[in-house]
Amino acid sequence: MKAQLGTDEGKHKFVLKTPKGTRDFGPKEMAIRERAFKAIISCFKRHGAEVIDTPVFELKETLTGKYGEDSKLIYDLKDQGGELLSLRYDLTVPFARYLAMNKITNIKRYHIAKVYRRDNPAMTRGRYREFYQCDFDIAGQFDPMIPDAERLKIVHEILSDLQLGDFVIKVNDRRILDGMFAVCGVPDSKFRTICSSVDKLDKVPWEEVRSEMVAEKGLSPEAADRIGEYVQLHGGLDLIEQLLQDPKLSQNKVAKEGLGDMKLLFEYLTLFGITGKISFDLSLARGLDYYTGVIFEAVLLQQDNEHLEEPLSVGSVAGGGRYDGLVGMFDAKGRKVPCVGVSIGIERIFSILEQRLEASEEKIRTTETQVLVASAQKKLLEERLKLISELWDAGIKAEMLYKKNPKLLNQLQYCEETGIPLVAIVGEQELKDGVVKLRIVATREEVNVRRESLVEEIRIRTSQC
Amino acid sequence: MKAQLGTDEGKHKFVLKTPKGTRDFGPKEMAIRERAFKAIISCFKRHGAEVIDTPVFELKETLTGKYGEDSKLIYDLKDQGGELLSLRYDLTVPFARYLAMNKITNIKRYHIAKVYRRDNPAMTRGRYREFYQCDFDIAGQFDPMIPDAERLKIVHEILSDLQLGDFVIKVNDRRILDGMFAVCGVPDSKFRTICSSVDKLDKVPWEEVRSEMVAEKGLSPEAADRIGEYVQLHGGLDLIEQLLQDPKLSQNKVAKEGLGDMKLLFEYLTLFGITGKISFDLSLARGLDYYTGVIFEAVLLQQDNEHLEEPLSVGSVAGGGRYDGLVGMFDAKGRKVPCVGVSIGIERIFSILEQRLEASEEKIRTTETQVLVASAQKKLLEERLKLISELWDAGIKAEMLYKKNPKLLNQLQYCEETGIPLVAIVGEQELKDGVVKLRIVATREEVNVRRESLVEEIRIRTSQC
Repeated sequence: MKAQLGTDEGKHKFVLKTPKGTRDFGPKEMAIRERAFKAIISCFKRHGAEVIDTPVFELKETLTGKYGEDSKLIYDLKDQGGELLSLRYDLTVPFARYLAMNKITNIKRYHIAKVYRRDNPAMTRGRYREFYQCDFDIAGQFDPMIPDAERLKIVHEILSDLQLGDFVIKVNDRRILDGMFAVCGVPDSKFRTICSSVDKLDKVPWEEVRSEMVAEKGLSPEAADRIGEYVQLHGGLDLIEQLLQDPKLSQNKVAKEGLGDMKLLFEYLTLFGITGKISFDLSLARGLDYYTGVIFEAVLLQQDNEHLEEPLSVGSVAGGGRYDGLVGMFDAKGRKVPCVGVSIGIERIFSILEQRLEASEEKIRTTETQVLVASAQKKLLEERLKLISELWDAGIKAEMLYKKNPKLLNQLQYCEETGIPLVAIVGEQELKDGVVKLRIVATREEVNVRRESLVEEIRIRTSQC
Repeated sequence: MKAQLGTDEGKHKFVLKTPKGTRDFGPKEMAIRERAFKAIISCFKRHGAEVIDTPVFELKETLTGKYGEDSKLIYDLKDQGGELLSLRYDLTVPFARYLAMNKITNIKRYHIAKVYRRDNPAMTRGRYREFYQCDFDIAGQFDPMIPDAERLKIVHEILSDLQLGDFVIKVNDRRILDGMFAVCGVPDSKFRTICSSVDKLDKVPWEEVRSEMVAEKGLSPEAADRIGEYVQLHGGLDLIEQLLQDPKLSQNKVAKEGLGDMKLLFEYLTLFGITGKISFDLSLARGLDYYTGVIFEAVLLQQDNEHLEEPLSVGSVAGGGRYDGLVGMFDAKGRKVPCVGVSIGIERIFSILEQRLEASEEKIRTTETQVLVASAQKKLLEERLKLISELWDAGIKAEMLYKKNPKLLNQLQYCEETGIPLVAIVGEQELKDGVVKLRIVATREEVNVRRESLVEEIRIRTSQC
């Protein structure tokens, strides 16, 4: 969409748009967004989380060396003198910086804020360059797998609560992956880069991933093929038991540790009664460098959803992992604070909720106004101003049209359009009688209410709002 | 504060801090912030506002030529290929861009978000480089001064509601200023730059401002002295009447318009009953280029506040103005949409609320947890996990310690520290009897509750939370 400066202001043409990969949220989108946030925040609070906030940018060096191959997606600020800054890429690294800086060794917090990635946007699939993350993290030295289990319970609660349809939560462990790479003959130096290749398996077929490993990353075909056998495996406790017997894996120390914890995790998830939606999946790798233990990713399953015209491919809606080393990277003495986190990918969830609302008949209000202060005749602006001022001071949500002499019809139409349930009408007669005519928009019923009891009457009639 | 990467990770030293002029919000600060936002948002909703959100950065050219001398404070992003971007400097220009882009000619919206200015921070006075603005704007073609009056009512409601102490709302009109400059002999070309000089009068004495006008900006000493006489004036309706009789000003068309509207504004404010805190002040100029009509600024008055150790000089806490030309600058055909806005400078308000809380005895909770699920003996982790899962599924806000066998004393201490009002204790005997021991932390009273009625019991006992 092109636009030109008003002739009086200047000459040069410019494009009238939001930056690539970003969007505005209008009142309707915001109403949907607030709904989703409400569900997520109430879940986080249900689990006893505190809330924190950090700046949108960090010192560039704070983000350096935390994101592996994704580091190229970081937005840098222009050097205008002073510190070199970058926009945050996620909420996890700022959280770790916050813990180290304030010497906090024990906290359970959530943080909902926008993060920034110079990625190729796919807006219809809910992938943006500016997008919200809803993070819940548990930091501290605790007995194994208890926080890890609660975190998956949280994802299960939120996805169920938002009614996004069927989903599965894939889990794996970086230690199992590393052990697997070791027994497959991947040199230590190649662990992370081979890990990023495996991470692509949810988007591209094994054959492509294999050729990337061999051709681009110089892995031996034999090693690649051995990996190929493992990454096909997924299941539950049965698979864990099977791998604990695996002649090669069972001989590898880290793999054994990981499998032992995975077994414990599944026992706790059984007590939570949510194993039905959990899948231990050896192809799950996660891109980021800083994970050290259990990792997970929640994906919505394709289905014929009567709410949607055509089913939407949204992929992962939540993910996270354990990162026991990250805080230590910021600490002078390298003191570690074990952390486990979950991040809800809210933009993709918005896309679904928006599409669903489009399809549905539901008309969603964008204001909470209880009453419109209207006038029946001309020359009553002063009276309207006096009345609405009384209502505001009493805490009533009230609006009026910004015209000296609005037509009553226009005032009633405004209520129909915006869903305002009540109209308080002042007229000469009402003023004489010390009453206000209260009109119920839905039923068109009208009652005279004594001025002094108007506030109470409005409260009663809108108590459900 | 300095820190070094953990020896295993790397060698180079780096600084562990947030960027200059920014800060983290910990759980306690967030609790205060949420309180202030609650008061502000409920006021905005009381006045029927919708809510929108826009990206944190805009195309650089979108911000160009909107902020006059302040443009140098804009943060630019590094050119990493693609569009040239800048962080938003305020929420007003993005709002105007949003209106023009979506061809919206009529909306009442609020927007609460962070804005960015490469200013000299004065954190103790609540001036940051990243800070929140809480904006409420009314866009549309309406009868004069009705939205302008409501906007000042909103500021009055919010500052009263937050109990920040005594305040005054200074108002003026760009047309009165321009008319004044004209009759004082300021050449048209110098209006805006002289305006920025006048704007400094709240921080520096007239003599300095005068010499800046004459020495730096080449204004004639006579003109400067004539301005000096006017900018000392402040008052109410009386002053407006007096200036309407002023031999010079009354001959100037724009000044006359401005004074006429100012009179009307004061009539409406009288109906709202808030003129007691409004001062028509000819020294009020406001820095920004885009204002075209009534401008205002709300200032807290110094006082001995028993809540504060020493009174805090916070200055302006809200400001705004009418900007009828801004949207037109973004429209292809230069179509104008009259707008009037208010912006609450929340950071300064935080400073006061924080200081006040420090001084007060009040202990502020940072979570909403209703109950801690605890165990009296060892080997009850599974039972705790089962119970807490039941409570979460029933919507109860519940926590547990992430230990296999926590001491009961530690569990009770955790409640004392965090303010959790209830403890649900599982023990072997209780399990046999099918009950849970519910302990009220404040009174240390303990009651056995049948498991099936536990949720209801917790709801009743925490209903005020």
